[in-house]
Amino acid sequence: MAGVTLGQIAARFGLVLHGDPDLVVESVATLKDARAGQVSFLSNPRYRRFLAETAATAVVVDEASARECRAAALVSPNPYAAYARLAGWLHPEPPAAPGVHPSAVVEPGARIAASAAIGPHAVVGAGCEIGERAVIGAGSVLGEGCVVGEDSRLAPRVVCYRRVRIGRRCLVHSGAVLGADGFGIAQDRDGWVKVPQLGAVRVGDDVEIGANTTIDRGAIDDTVIGDDVKIDNLVQIGHNCRIGAHTAIAGCVGISGSTTIGARCMIGGAAGIAGHLELGDDVVVLGLTMVSRSIQRPGLYSSGLPAEEAGAWRRTVARLRHLDELFDRVRRLERPGTGSDSDSEPS
Amino acid sequence: MAGVTLGQIAARFGLVLHGDPDLVVESVATLKDARAGQVSFLSNPRYRRFLAETAATAVVVDEASARECRAAALVSPNPYAAYARLAGWLHPEPPAAPGVHPSAVVEPGARIAASAAIGPHAVVGAGCEIGERAVIGAGSVLGEGCVVGEDSRLAPRVVCYRRVRIGRRCLVHSGAVLGADGFGIAQDRDGWVKVPQLGAVRVGDDVEIGANTTIDRGAIDDTVIGDDVKIDNLVQIGHNCRIGAHTAIAGCVGISGSTTIGARCMIGGAAGIAGHLELGDDVVVLGLTMVSRSIQRPGLYSSGLPAEEAGAWRRTVARLRHLDELFDRVRRLERPGTGSDSDSEPS
Amino acid sequence: MAGVTLGQIAARFGLVLHGDPDLVVESVATLKDARAGQVSFLSNPRYRRFLAETAATAVVVDEASARECRAAALVSPNPYAAYARLAGWLHPEPPAAPGVHPSAVVEPGARIAASAAIGPHAVVGAGCEIGERAVIGAGSVLGEGCVVGEDSRLAPRVVCYRRVRIGRRCLVHSGAVLGADGFGIAQDRDGWVKVPQLGAVRVGDDVEIGANTTIDRGAIDDTVIGDDVKIDNLVQIGHNCRIGAHTAIAGCVGISGSTTIGARCMIGGAAGIAGHLELGDDVVVLGLTMVSRSIQRPGLYSSGLPAEEAGAWRRTVARLRHLDELFDRVRRLERPGTGSDSDSEPS
Repeated sequence: MAGVTLGQIAARFGLVLHGDPDLVVESVATLKDARAGQVSFLSNPRYRRFLAETAATAVVVDEASARECRAAALVSPNPYAAYARLAGWLHPEPPAAPGVHPSAVVEPGARIAASAAIGPHAVVGAGCEIGERAVIGAGSVLGEGCVVGEDSRLAPRVVCYRRVRIGRRCLVHSGAVLGADGFGIAQDRDGWVKVPQLGAVRVGDDVEIGANTTIDRGAIDDTVIGDDVKIDNLVQIGHNCRIGAHTAIAGCVGISGSTTIGARCMIGGAAGIAGHLELGDDVVVLGLTMVSRSIQRPGLYSSGLPAEEAGAWRRTVARLRHLDELFDRVRRLERPGTGSDSDSEPS
Repeated sequence: MAGVTLGQIAARFGLVLHGDPDLVVESVATLKDARAGQVSFLSNPRYRRFLAETAATAVVVDEASARECRAAALVSPNPYAAYARLAGWLHPEPPAAPGVHPSAVVEPGARIAASAAIGPHAVVGAGCEIGERAVIGAGSVLGEGCVVGEDSRLAPRVVCYRRVRIGRRCLVHSGAVLGADGFGIAQDRDGWVKVPQLGAVRVGDDVEIGANTTIDRGAIDDTVIGDDVKIDNLVQIGHNCRIGAHTAIAGCVGISGSTTIGARCMIGGAAGIAGHLELGDDVVVLGLTMVSRSIQRPGLYSSGLPAEEAGAWRRTVARLRHLDELFDRVRRLERPGTGSDSDSEPS
Repeated sequence: MAGVTLGQIAARFGLVLHGDPDLVVESVATLKDARAGQVSFLSNPRYRRFLAETAATAVVVDEASARECRAAALVSPNPYAAYARLAGWLHPEPPAAPGVHPSAVVEPGARIAASAAIGPHAVVGAGCEIGERAVIGAGSVLGEGCVVGEDSRLAPRVVCYRRVRIGRRCLVHSGAVLGADGFGIAQDRDGWVKVPQLGAVRVGDDVEIGANTTIDRGAIDDTVIGDDVKIDNLVQIGHNCRIGAHTAIAGCVGISGSTTIGARCMIGGAAGIAGHLELGDDVVVLGLTMVSRSIQRPGLYSSGLPAEEAGAWRRTVARLRHLDELFDRVRRLERPGTGSDSDSEPS
């Protein structure tokens, strides 16, 4: 973009401008590294000290920080969201050239919108429907009967097994696998019997799915990802899970099969959620937490243990093995007339 | 399938039928959503309440539940396994069309059975052997000298490095990587020296490997996956591991190098198993458990901590840091004649 | 390799030879399985018992173990590193045939060195630079403007988004995704706003990146991986992380955005490191540890809980929920004159 004035920005995004509306910015930068002609933002308080020193032409800030800002201030009650919109406007994603690359394989009966772009070595299965302006990245493979909605983009090397449906304006990153068989196995006398995975995966609108994330197809019903769900990298979502709208799931999370998660939840990195559970709306699970029961009440939940110096931790672990006994010993101490107990376990 | 009678099903799978043998079913469904003409099953007791309401024509159940079933009952001592076989019969996997797709690259000396199917953009390295009815999915890459047994299927975008051997009737899901170098590095004065990874990966018969799972090649000897092993998505299996027959490994598990796991083990989701250990047969490790020592005895093992409300958990964590002291304080209290101790640490 | 004498090996790698310098070895093997004509090594003391029985012609050992060795001894103060170098010499990686495979797609303006090898179905984006002897594996996709340095190898099916820079002598394994968007989302009244991810990924020299590992591009600045960093499989590195030289990261680790890790750190398998932290040089984090605060001091850190028999563990977990109360009960017991306390909670 050739550059926009602060006045244009303030008007477009509904921001209050403290400063000269004719100043021009062309790109975004961090507070620390910004030069003249760049716009920055402050949302994480740990970077507040840079406000007084930044060389940025303008900074998106909240009202409280605006006075400390040596640059022009673009004031928003939610500076991070305002910055996100502004950055998207200044640095638009370059559009993909429409058309089907000659090396792509499109099977019979697939319908591809004229404005869609199918990359090199992509494979579009029989009966797929690819919407307007959708992008199928290089080397991506869509099985039979998949649907990719308008303006959705699949990065290179995404795989959708048969009958996966992706809504509009979604972004699926490289290596993601949608619709692989759920882990359905039945134990029998001589070993395992595979349970056919006959459902599909349905993804709503405005969903982002991270690199190398896997979302399994349902066993009978579908696995369902709601609108505006945001999923980071290397996440595993088991068969028949249902993820509610606006829920965000950080990297390395694993969710076992048939679990339902409500709307506006946030699941921290590397959390593990067992199968057949229900999490209500607005549940926040902190990183590395194990969820093994349903949670109805909105709130913060955790079970992670913070790192300690290894020797100290080893002692704590050794003590933990005797915690049950310790409770018994304290109980004995509490008995009237027994300030000491000669047959207590050695500690 | 055009539809089969309950009588045919009972005969084929050795089930006891309570109901009209001439009723016809065409497909499977959940108890809750089934319509007439569909067959369902009950194995998880939490869905038992649907038995009395289901519109299914028939239900696969155990003897104890058969009387509560308003539909015809197909009785099995193991309804889940019986359902799995029945569903596989009613909904067979569509066979892949034999032949090598014109866009595939087959290097010299590869031997591909006439009934095998090599998908678009697949690469089959020199000297590979692909068995009868095997399927190599679109975009999959096999290095030099790989073997894929009869009736095994590689989904799209699987990678096997050189000399990986896969048995018969296996199913490998998209994004799986077999035979990448193990994490072998030797520390030297100036940094790391790579330890060449010269072994291979050998996979038995009837193995399923999940999407984006990685199984490293051995350093010198091979990494070995036994018959009928079932591995979920995003699992990491380090170099020189040996996994015994019929063992099942849930999603997001990590197993470090040179660990041996016995037969019929079950490893829960996101468990982590250290290197150079031995787990005996019939060991069950629950989800999110850390295994840092060998386990010989069959049984259930765990170390996961269930989620709590975050404020309560924070208090527990703060107390844990003083657990060692608490044991000392209790010990002092237990000493004869010391019901109280004036120099105890503040709690 | 046709075979080398022990004298040649000793001279080339600066090892002290106890034995006949004219003996010839051709390949490496484990102590247990070695035959005549093979060379083995001992570095893990748990395999020491094999020293007296091995049929190897020679063994790389340290001085202390040399006397127990029935074979010729190649003595090094660091036998594992010496073995690694020797094995790399005896078993060199076969060189890839230079040139661009006819099925590869090379976009305009890409510069590919004459000695580089571009595999089948690879895609090299506009403006990429591929150095001498570099290898781009089958099906790998490089976005616009990527740089791959001399002697670096990308295995099949690696993806680099636009402007990813990889140094010299790197090895990137299959399924790795470099430069996907970081997980940058801003919460707004109606849901999430995507924060454009405008930085890139820069990887130093001599870096190894494991299969299906993901390293996100920076939000504004770059994500930076230092020289000689070694990363195992299924690792997630968030946007704007900086990993110091010679640091090793084991499988299944997750590192959230904007965290800086120093030089020569070792991060154990499945550890989770929160965002916006700093770990100093020489910090060792054991497996399954949660790091939620910065760590300046070199040393070992952990928070993993070792597996126990599940019934015993369940009792410990139940007790943990009452740990806070237990501290209070002990405190009451410690009060002068209160050897027992009648209103204590039941244990």
